[in-house]
Amino acid sequence: MTENKEFPMVSLINAPENPLKTIYLACRTCYSADYPCNIWEKDVDDAKMLKLVKKVLQSGHHSTIEHCQYVFTISGVSRACTHQLVRHRHMSFSQKSQRYVVEQGQFEYITPQTIKNAGFEDEYHVFMKNTAEFYDKMIEKRIPAEDARFILPNAATSSLVASLNLREMIHLANLRLCVSAQHEIRKLVKKMCDLVVKKEPWLGEYLVPKCEKNGFCDEIKSCGRFPQKVE
Amino acid sequence: MTENKEFPMVSLINAPENPLKTIYLACRTCYSADYPCNIWEKDVDDAKMLKLVKKVLQSGHHSTIEHCQYVFTISGVSRACTHQLVRHRHMSFSQKSQRYVVEQGQFEYITPQTIKNAGFEDEYHVFMKNTAEFYDKMIEKRIPAEDARFILPNAATSSLVASLNLREMIHLANLRLCVSAQHEIRKLVKKMCDLVVKKEPWLGEYLVPKCEKNGFCDEIKSCGRFPQKVE
Amino acid sequence: MTENKEFPMVSLINAPENPLKTIYLACRTCYSADYPCNIWEKDVDDAKMLKLVKKVLQSGHHSTIEHCQYVFTISGVSRACTHQLVRHRHMSFSQKSQRYVVEQGQFEYITPQTIKNAGFEDEYHVFMKNTAEFYDKMIEKRIPAEDARFILPNAATSSLVASLNLREMIHLANLRLCVSAQHEIRKLVKKMCDLVVKKEPWLGEYLVPKCEKNGFCDEIKSCGRFPQKVE
Amino acid sequence: MTENKEFPMVSLINAPENPLKTIYLACRTCYSADYPCNIWEKDVDDAKMLKLVKKVLQSGHHSTIEHCQYVFTISGVSRACTHQLVRHRHMSFSQKSQRYVVEQGQFEYITPQTIKNAGFEDEYHVFMKNTAEFYDKMIEKRIPAEDARFILPNAATSSLVASLNLREMIHLANLRLCVSAQHEIRKLVKKMCDLVVKKEPWLGEYLVPKCEKNGFCDEIKSCGRFPQKVE
Repeated sequence: MTENKEFPMVSLINAPENPLKTIYLACRTCYSADYPCNIWEKDVDDAKMLKLVKKVLQSGHHSTIEHCQYVFTISGVSRACTHQLVRHRHMSFSQKSQRYVVEQGQFEYITPQTIKNAGFEDEYHVFMKNTAEFYDKMIEKRIPAEDARFILPNAATSSLVASLNLREMIHLANLRLCVSAQHEIRKLVKKMCDLVVKKEPWLGEYLVPKCEKNGFCDEIKSCGRFPQKVE
Repeated sequence: MTENKEFPMVSLINAPENPLKTIYLACRTCYSADYPCNIWEKDVDDAKMLKLVKKVLQSGHHSTIEHCQYVFTISGVSRACTHQLVRHRHMSFSQKSQRYVVEQGQFEYITPQTIKNAGFEDEYHVFMKNTAEFYDKMIEKRIPAEDARFILPNAATSSLVASLNLREMIHLANLRLCVSAQHEIRKLVKKMCDLVVKKEPWLGEYLVPKCEKNGFCDEIKSCGRFPQKVE
Repeated sequence: MTENKEFPMVSLINAPENPLKTIYLACRTCYSADYPCNIWEKDVDDAKMLKLVKKVLQSGHHSTIEHCQYVFTISGVSRACTHQLVRHRHMSFSQKSQRYVVEQGQFEYITPQTIKNAGFEDEYHVFMKNTAEFYDKMIEKRIPAEDARFILPNAATSSLVASLNLREMIHLANLRLCVSAQHEIRKLVKKMCDLVVKKEPWLGEYLVPKCEKNGFCDEIKSCGRFPQKVE
Repeated sequence: MTENKEFPMVSLINAPENPLKTIYLACRTCYSADYPCNIWEKDVDDAKMLKLVKKVLQSGHHSTIEHCQYVFTISGVSRACTHQLVRHRHMSFSQKSQRYVVEQGQFEYITPQTIKNAGFEDEYHVFMKNTAEFYDKMIEKRIPAEDARFILPNAATSSLVASLNLREMIHLANLRLCVSAQHEIRKLVKKMCDLVVKKEPWLGEYLVPKCEKNGFCDEIKSCGRFPQKVE
């Protein structure tokens, strides 16, 4: 039983070699008489490609960016967080199974900052220790892992391979970078975006919370950063 | 804190008025010169409609059954179960939020049968009682519900409104009625199928585990009901 | 060979019985400790339901409206139009097949208004007559319908059964009611929306072009109705 | 106006660097206690990876292969063909627009073999020539391209950038390599599969028509290669 203190852990393991050129190709294919295989062969300078791509994205023609897929490994996120994450139905997931993987002696968990701040930290760790002991005891007595895990808490960490295209990546950022998102998924998505922006700095302006994109806040409780939409 | 002993609870709250006629319409529209609004107006006897529909379904032309949507309310299922259920990306879900709904004094849970059988039932209930008390105490001290719930177990129940079309319903049945599926989701999907078949008995032959559909078992460990596929 | 002058023809053949109550149920299930089957049984007056639903929709929580599905029959639309329509990947379609349905003696087509206005109407009808004759001749000589149709024009009409949930309906309206959409799909989607709004007048404010929803125009060429988004 | 005789033209412009390792990672993540970032770093020999991957695929656990995306450029396919292709809702498409791209002087088309064989070839080319002339005349008289194209035939070629993950690739192959699929889409998908198999020969056994996968034919009219499923 260990606390994971450096959550979440994220790596970008596959990314398109040339996303700008790929998106430029997709945009040009829609509006050009030339064959896409010919467009692909031509050397076009980045500034020109970027100009077209930005114009197309601004007009909401987002299917052109679905051809860029990113693959991440994720660990050290609670199952509270992953239960939210897997609701993104345009993403693909392969997640560690609590039915098949026996956590005996290795159950790992997350501690929210508010619990530390309120002085509950020791009681929280004792709770996790007791939980781990009861789980281990049930496993020893041949309770199947899929049933013993009924006592494992939301705090228990999980691991995933997750992939998504750039259109869904922007949607994910728009929703989950908002301060009203759960703190853990917000951190996770921020790390995912940072890894993409490190490779492609020009994508930074799209990987933002929805208020920055829309120019207004549509949340019921606003953080005040942008004005709320008036009726 | 209460144990939910009658899990899962399922109601069918919306179903297409005439699924057979709707699917017949969809099939005929593909292969007929007539306008679909005219096909819809004609009286065709059930036996004739059923004959065409079965033939089309047998040939794998399943987009014709996507026009029939079923809406269910579901409660008394563990979050272990719902984390699996929401992986069905062709379904629509509205799920009770542990971030916004405070479970204080009303935390409900499921007890797996294997835990009862192995003599761990009392210890399990004590564990749940302790968990509820710690949760309630954190809520009283103003820990936000979204963080206090980190100690809530997979056994905690959840509620959903879930909807899906008939194509996904058949897919769900094929996967989740298999004995290798988790017992709870298997029970849940069985109840969903029973409610549909009660209204439309002719659908019974499609809402079956995948082995019955395929004529062979593709699981790594087979229950022996159907022969395993040989290489 | 006939011109279809009253295109497009649209009927709404299946709609949820009580969409407001269904959406209210979905919203309440997310934020309430009560079981959804209990929420469903309670009588709540429409004004109260509408108030919650509008608030939830305004905050962008649109998964709650996926539980309402609408089924339409559509005819008298060109295949130019249907090639666009079927790009809506969240919709379900059953479309008349030009591979299996032989159009001999019954090929139907659409005439765009601009062609009439520019004085090409007679030449256009002669062109369609010649096309029909060549098609019929090839069919008589046993050319398979799927190959003879290679000469059929984009103007040739098609028929579909199409279904979509309310979330996709709003998305469809946002995109296709814009004046920059093709005139035919714009008319089609307007008719679909009118049929829904006739049943549910409160949905009228959502089934609008994207500029009305956003408060600005994101098209590269604006019609001027709303200001364009400034950088 | 030109006939495209070498249809379809297909290039694979983006493919995952190491699909076997990526799928192995996804499989292992589900069933291992180790972090996926650690699994990714380990050197495992291909034979061992292949053994696990084949076992997982055979048991129908296909979400593990969604992390591999392939991007193609496609040209020289008729719009009859692309209208079918874009029905694959798990694929992403950027298609040449007949609304925005003016085909004046450059309208290109496909001639089906059956039309050549039946002696209609000359008449077909004359038809295409007449069509091109009428189209060009309308464009000169300022008919918008989106309306002038109403006379363009299904035979008119189109271009696309198309991307899909390996799961959808297998599904596409299963459906479209069947002899009952339209000849053009069958050729197109065969070329796509060949490009993938050239890079990853081990995928060849999955990129097959559905009868090879299932061991039986579910078509209404069988080609006789596999026995039809008996009731």
